[in-house]
Amino acid sequence: MPKICIIGAGSAAFWGSWTRDLCVMKSAPGSTITLVDINKERLDAAYKVARRYAGELGVNVKIEKTEDRRHALKDAEYVINTAFGGHDYTETMRRVGEKHGYYRGIDAVEFNFVSDYYSILSFRQYKLALDLASDIEEICPDAWLCQLANPIFEVTTLLQRQRSKVKAIGFCDGYIGIYNLLLAIGLSPADADFQVAGLNHCIWLTRLRNKETGEDAYPLVDDWVANKAKGFWDNHDLSIWQETLSPASVDMYKIYGLYPIGDTARSFTWKYHYDLETSKRWFGPLGGTDSEVGTLVRLDRFQKWAERLMQFEGNPNAKLTEEIPPVKGQNEYSDFIDSAELGEESRLVLNVPNDGILPQLPGDLTVEVPVVVSKGGRLSPERPNPLPRRLLDFVILPRMLRAEWGLEAFTSGSREMLVEILIKDPRTKSEKHARETIDEILALPGNEEMAAHYR
Amino acid sequence: MPKICIIGAGSAAFWGSWTRDLCVMKSAPGSTITLVDINKERLDAAYKVARRYAGELGVNVKIEKTEDRRHALKDAEYVINTAFGGHDYTETMRRVGEKHGYYRGIDAVEFNFVSDYYSILSFRQYKLALDLASDIEEICPDAWLCQLANPIFEVTTLLQRQRSKVKAIGFCDGYIGIYNLLLAIGLSPADADFQVAGLNHCIWLTRLRNKETGEDAYPLVDDWVANKAKGFWDNHDLSIWQETLSPASVDMYKIYGLYPIGDTARSFTWKYHYDLETSKRWFGPLGGTDSEVGTLVRLDRFQKWAERLMQFEGNPNAKLTEEIPPVKGQNEYSDFIDSAELGEESRLVLNVPNDGILPQLPGDLTVEVPVVVSKGGRLSPERPNPLPRRLLDFVILPRMLRAEWGLEAFTSGSREMLVEILIKDPRTKSEKHARETIDEILALPGNEEMAAHYR
Repeated sequence: MPKICIIGAGSAAFWGSWTRDLCVMKSAPGSTITLVDINKERLDAAYKVARRYAGELGVNVKIEKTEDRRHALKDAEYVINTAFGGHDYTETMRRVGEKHGYYRGIDAVEFNFVSDYYSILSFRQYKLALDLASDIEEICPDAWLCQLANPIFEVTTLLQRQRSKVKAIGFCDGYIGIYNLLLAIGLSPADADFQVAGLNHCIWLTRLRNKETGEDAYPLVDDWVANKAKGFWDNHDLSIWQETLSPASVDMYKIYGLYPIGDTARSFTWKYHYDLETSKRWFGPLGGTDSEVGTLVRLDRFQKWAERLMQFEGNPNAKLTEEIPPVKGQNEYSDFIDSAELGEESRLVLNVPNDGILPQLPGDLTVEVPVVVSKGGRLSPERPNPLPRRLLDFVILPRMLRAEWGLEAFTSGSREMLVEILIKDPRTKSEKHARETIDEILALPGNEEMAAHYR
Repeated sequence: MPKICIIGAGSAAFWGSWTRDLCVMKSAPGSTITLVDINKERLDAAYKVARRYAGELGVNVKIEKTEDRRHALKDAEYVINTAFGGHDYTETMRRVGEKHGYYRGIDAVEFNFVSDYYSILSFRQYKLALDLASDIEEICPDAWLCQLANPIFEVTTLLQRQRSKVKAIGFCDGYIGIYNLLLAIGLSPADADFQVAGLNHCIWLTRLRNKETGEDAYPLVDDWVANKAKGFWDNHDLSIWQETLSPASVDMYKIYGLYPIGDTARSFTWKYHYDLETSKRWFGPLGGTDSEVGTLVRLDRFQKWAERLMQFEGNPNAKLTEEIPPVKGQNEYSDFIDSAELGEESRLVLNVPNDGILPQLPGDLTVEVPVVVSKGGRLSPERPNPLPRRLLDFVILPRMLRAEWGLEAFTSGSREMLVEILIKDPRTKSEKHARETIDEILALPGNEEMAAHYR
């Protein structure tokens, strides 16, 4: 009978899935779910709709709400952090970057084009995660902190270093792109033994076998790449979040020797991202999730989810279980809770402390790998084969360094290091250019605390 | 009675010092020095002048010459590789880069502005070092390969990985910049216990103590930085190769917490290198060794050295030991030979396989640290304290990655990776831009073998 606390419960992006998944999971009966949000209107709507959903399903879940995080943490066993600084907020900062000549903003660079994944300007997320972890240490030290909001790699690495007593895990559904690949190559998910490994938003197919025969199934990928991919692209308009089957993913596979899974190809090399025309070539007619066009589609979807929540609230006659069928989605936090509570082992793709899992990378950062979860949340991570040196040196280590830069600037509170990070950006013309851009972003309304932090 | 072989013996840049140092070293009497060069005219001049120099000194050194490297390696115990692809050659490649908008050429980037230190386009140096090592394995497997020509970090790392049976060490006199710092802070070299550590052309003062009292002498550096540096800059025009006391070095010290020694500040951050105006601010009126002005001064010096050699040859009456006083310089290969031969221990700054010396860096690359050399060339490297995380993440690891990129492209013979390296360059506008630049450089006369290698 798990006690679950959801931080940022009104967050539009996560709404649909958490309500459903936490109501349909095996360990749901008897559980308590406490919703927390600083947006009272959203919180109320989420609360009402969640109660109705649980009621329709007839599942015995106790749903509570509060604006007081510390109150909610009392007795919590699972703290799910979905809180995001706000898309309006990130878009405002992006606009200042664009005004200064940084296409898609200063956080959009070759090693991190994921639109709502800020690593330089992620002050709010870093601060919130540390504060939350500090509260957990004090109030519910045995709770699991399940980090769902970006930047997951940076946040979980920061927690691992600064709040190592808190059991923090990162959850990202990016890896499910593997299912698109399996569909394309004609291997049933039930027959596939796959392993992905890397950093969050940067994961690679380190194993693909036929489960029954044990045979290597990578040749099916090679066949698709050589003979079918072009036909696929000619007949499918790739939309947002469909990077796994994009020309960019195929290009990376050819160069680095492992297939990039999920939205991995959203980042890595300016070659895919110089401008909209370029990204259309690599990601389809919208130019991918992160182009100026893809971003509009993405934000529009978030908006619609938020509106849908309000519509459900305003329409007491709507049958919610018809609108949101009670079938578990592919987010894995409910699986994690089920395994921890009921002891039925599950194999999940999680972001966990490296500590030798990938010995080519430092031990004190977080890696994304399959992990077997058992009773009480015991974690047994898989240890993939060594990654190809070229992949490490051209992609993974540069990505890691970018995280380190953002974390070092945050940890030291140094505006000078923010400027130096920006000086490393291809689009910076001069030290003055970098300095003025940083200063203008930090001077935005809403960034007062951030400006005081980065002295 | 060491048998020494000098590859590239006619090379103007090294001429003055090798003749002198090998004639005045303690183990010189009875030694054999075989000069090798592919430039017959230079080789003849170097040979004649060296014989005269030894004759004037009255030292019993047998000097030989040959254009046949394999012949020279027979019985060699020390192979000194000073051969450089040629300044005309690197300048020609630089010009193609500049034509395409790459200020100071495509190998001049924030992490490697050292003018004759090519890591992308260093095919000739990589090839020569591997061929030489392969000959050594076959002909004189117990010989030491002393690498003096750039790029030392990349070449010695490559040798360590691909020709690990050959005992290769890198020698660079960059670290002697420490003596300028000691002079500035008023600490006599005799009283200074200093330790530098890092990668070649990227070394840091990891220890500075008063030898007698054991007291930390870093406060003297802080005092100079705070109270005297500005006055020094106001009254001294910094020339080339004087980076240790430049505003750039002080800036790096303030940001990274350890003082950069030698020409370390030549690289690292565009902030110092955007254009001539910028580099004048950081390196003095010439804009440092690597600006368009500094480069002219540097090449002019090489030219003068070459002319001087020819003048000595053409003037049999010149008293060479007056022109080049027989006092050992600060290159360390003669000290190394002395210690190995005579067993008098010496503490030298060398580039040696890391293998745990700096455990924050991979074991299979070369690091520059003080090493105690004893009989037979036994090496006991010092193990410095851990480097500051900020220094690692912002400077040393990005520098390391740049080396890895160049080596990966060379090792795999992949033109695609050369293009990808260039795509990572801030100045590249498009994939086409990168591709055309690489293709044009590889199409230069003299690059036929290189063009065939990078398919």
